[in-house]
Amino acid sequence: MIFDPQTLSYDDKGLIPVIAQDHETGQVLMMAWMNADAVTKTLQTGRVTYWSRSRQSFWIKGETSGHVQKLVDFRLDCDRDCLLVMVDQTGPACHTNRKSCFYTAVRDGAETELMAPLTD
Amino acid sequence: MIFDPQTLSYDDKGLIPVIAQDHETGQVLMMAWMNADAVTKTLQTGRVTYWSRSRQSFWIKGETSGHVQKLVDFRLDCDRDCLLVMVDQTGPACHTNRKSCFYTAVRDGAETELMAPLTD
Repeated sequence: MIFDPQTLSYDDKGLIPVIAQDHETGQVLMMAWMNADAVTKTLQTGRVTYWSRSRQSFWIKGETSGHVQKLVDFRLDCDRDCLLVMVDQTGPACHTNRKSCFYTAVRDGAETELMAPLTD
Repeated sequence: MIFDPQTLSYDDKGLIPVIAQDHETGQVLMMAWMNADAVTKTLQTGRVTYWSRSRQSFWIKGETSGHVQKLVDFRLDCDRDCLLVMVDQTGPACHTNRKSCFYTAVRDGAETELMAPLTD
């Protein structure tokens, strides 16, 4: 079946959550949002492109930082209201310079840092 | 630092997206939502408990299906607006009886099914 980005379920702001996962290690890197046009751009360019809610503009991941996400596989869930992109991540995915945004765990009721920022 | 569920960033409906990942295989299983009380219940019980947007009630994953998610690790992202739960998943996570909800890929512009439903 031909894929049409308009057949996804977007929220009341026209957005769909997107999970980015490292295609080699399986590490979950980040979660961000796309609108239908960002979905189209991501599939057309092979460069993961989100919609920035704070800037209200396209966010070609890594365009300024160089920490690009090359699309390896594009997946949608059963309800068509969440996406999973398998990516080849250059450098850290997180703006704190950590590989993943999920570097804090809650263990025994306390926040624990799991990863330090990468050093160049 | 002691973790307080109220310090997470919830959306205008009081919800935060939650990614569930198989702690052994790294497979991303599903994405659902929690409110602050569901976060508290999940941490207190060790049984992953979402907030069902359709039913407007707590959704103790697997309570009716038996396909429970035992919490192995609870993580939050840099912006505190997304959670990642590492889980021990009994049976399929998806209501279609597939291990993961992300069983559809978009390849060469077409939807492709990656996994068949599990058979008992």
